[in-house]
Amino acid sequence: MARKLNFGAGPSQLPLPVLERAAQEMLNYHDSGMSVLELSHRSALYESLHNQAIADLRSLLGISEEFSVLFTQGGARMQFDAVPLNLATRFPVGNYLVSGYWSDMAEVWARKYTRTQAIPYSNDSTLWNCGSPGYFYYCSNETIDGVEWLPSAADLQSVSSLPIVADMSSNILTTPIPCSSLGVFFAGAQKNLGPAGVTVSVVRKDLLGSAQSFAPSLLDWQLLDQQNSMYNTPPTYMIYMLGLYLDYVKKRGGVQSFYEESVRKSGAIYEVVDSSQGFYTSRVPRARRSRVNIPLSIRNGDAALEKEFLLQSERRGMTQLAGHKSAGGLRVSLYNGISEADTQQLADFMREFAAEHC
Amino acid sequence: MARKLNFGAGPSQLPLPVLERAAQEMLNYHDSGMSVLELSHRSALYESLHNQAIADLRSLLGISEEFSVLFTQGGARMQFDAVPLNLATRFPVGNYLVSGYWSDMAEVWARKYTRTQAIPYSNDSTLWNCGSPGYFYYCSNETIDGVEWLPSAADLQSVSSLPIVADMSSNILTTPIPCSSLGVFFAGAQKNLGPAGVTVSVVRKDLLGSAQSFAPSLLDWQLLDQQNSMYNTPPTYMIYMLGLYLDYVKKRGGVQSFYEESVRKSGAIYEVVDSSQGFYTSRVPRARRSRVNIPLSIRNGDAALEKEFLLQSERRGMTQLAGHKSAGGLRVSLYNGISEADTQQLADFMREFAAEHC
Repeated sequence: MARKLNFGAGPSQLPLPVLERAAQEMLNYHDSGMSVLELSHRSALYESLHNQAIADLRSLLGISEEFSVLFTQGGARMQFDAVPLNLATRFPVGNYLVSGYWSDMAEVWARKYTRTQAIPYSNDSTLWNCGSPGYFYYCSNETIDGVEWLPSAADLQSVSSLPIVADMSSNILTTPIPCSSLGVFFAGAQKNLGPAGVTVSVVRKDLLGSAQSFAPSLLDWQLLDQQNSMYNTPPTYMIYMLGLYLDYVKKRGGVQSFYEESVRKSGAIYEVVDSSQGFYTSRVPRARRSRVNIPLSIRNGDAALEKEFLLQSERRGMTQLAGHKSAGGLRVSLYNGISEADTQQLADFMREFAAEHC
Repeated sequence: MARKLNFGAGPSQLPLPVLERAAQEMLNYHDSGMSVLELSHRSALYESLHNQAIADLRSLLGISEEFSVLFTQGGARMQFDAVPLNLATRFPVGNYLVSGYWSDMAEVWARKYTRTQAIPYSNDSTLWNCGSPGYFYYCSNETIDGVEWLPSAADLQSVSSLPIVADMSSNILTTPIPCSSLGVFFAGAQKNLGPAGVTVSVVRKDLLGSAQSFAPSLLDWQLLDQQNSMYNTPPTYMIYMLGLYLDYVKKRGGVQSFYEESVRKSGAIYEVVDSSQGFYTSRVPRARRSRVNIPLSIRNGDAALEKEFLLQSERRGMTQLAGHKSAGGLRVSLYNGISEADTQQLADFMREFAAEHC
């Protein structure tokens, strides 16, 4: 059975060497006579892989000791609660830049805990500086809308002098991050970091320690920080898999190399779209196009042709190309586990399919 | 490298057939050309394993359709928050039977959300019926204290007519459960169900829908119920591993068979203790002795001898026998992944060690 190519929005395709190593070490990790699944989270062997994953995240993303690197559970979704639960006592307004589905969801959810302000995602970012005495929140890539915003440190400084929070679930590790201008950023692992079940939450240390009194323990960043994310049993195997993924990224040249690759990969797909004479269409303005999630229509929403595209792509071993149920159409997700060759295979098929049906 | 025997309190030893199957399916699950780690949680293949795990839990534990079976994250610890967050609006006092470390912790934590009452674990359970207009909470097995309470349905009915909540993290699947008399029960998977990172929460359906307004989404049982625990991306691989474990339990004869085995396994260890003429001592009254966690001392706390015991057991491939850091001494955990032969090996060594040092 040949490997399928998974262009889904997550859980995502993992690099083959990561899976092969996991399979090989399943029964006996580092000559311990045990699987990682069985290791006590208090054992030296587990602690070592846990701390190595943190160290690798720090070095790959340039995260200084000013920040705490936490492993949380519940995905980005749980951080939608954790952000206001941890910040709103000191920064009582949540200023949410709404660029799509997920930032909208985060804003709506934050209303449970604090006053919020939804800031429309206009072209002129100087309008975003609301001046409210709160935190500023953005989602660096919207998986459903296919919109990406990659601000520089200077961009962020011009937006807000207050803590800036970023949901980087879908593009972390695909691009360098302006860490020094951020207060908090987080990402579920299941797109570019590893499997579902562990989330990386990076918090500037001066923002710890202000959780609301009714914050559940596992949403209180300070509690997690004090225990090196082992306040209770962490999802040990998922952290191990994340570690294997980070190791792979390091060996393949680190974040800059994956950034360049992602530009080439998404470029190859957009090139097919833009040269298709309207066969494939993207509704996202060029300046905002995402490198990692590309929602598309065929002939502006020809459902029968889109269905045929999905059928044929599936037959060629390319899967999960349907759009999000709320958006319909197609969607191409190009996370770090998708290689340039994988992308080329899809681009070739897209060209063929367009030629056949033009 | 021979397999080590892991007598730790969790994450615990997994049955070898479970690990072998996981290794074998790592790169290609059910001829899908993908790893379970890569499957979309919205794919038919994943949904099928997710629902099979729920069906197996229902049939193994006799859980009727009156209950919802949820997969939560954050371990039993997160359910310490979820219980009052979901129940206290209707049942405003948490009556906690405090039989050890974890039930005490649960009571202390619940104070964040509601009025609580700590009920001492006396011999006379008629004293427990507090009559407060709240829920009744107990921990069926205390891993640190080595105390187990296995009430019958009649016992529970005599204790409270209000919802009864049970933390079964350490003895679920080792004994039949009086489901019909319970309102809620939950268990982290990492002891008898599978690996760390997924928790089973079983909630009577009439108890859904009353979460406090500030309950985070992933702690609101109703939200999870409405989405079949896929409100957001669930920890898919951990649920798969849990499914493999359940399959193993089914094939080995189900819960009753593991119950009988656990009586024999713990009996073998207690027999060594009781016949050791005070060399090994347990502080737990016989009627409360746990079948799954056995804290012990050597000569009432001879630290040098205990250290020697740990060294020698480690040399023989038996690991994680140290007591919890808060208790010291030794602790033998006999979860479902530990076979009778494994237990016999430990019992033999304990006898030898006692004979050598008497």
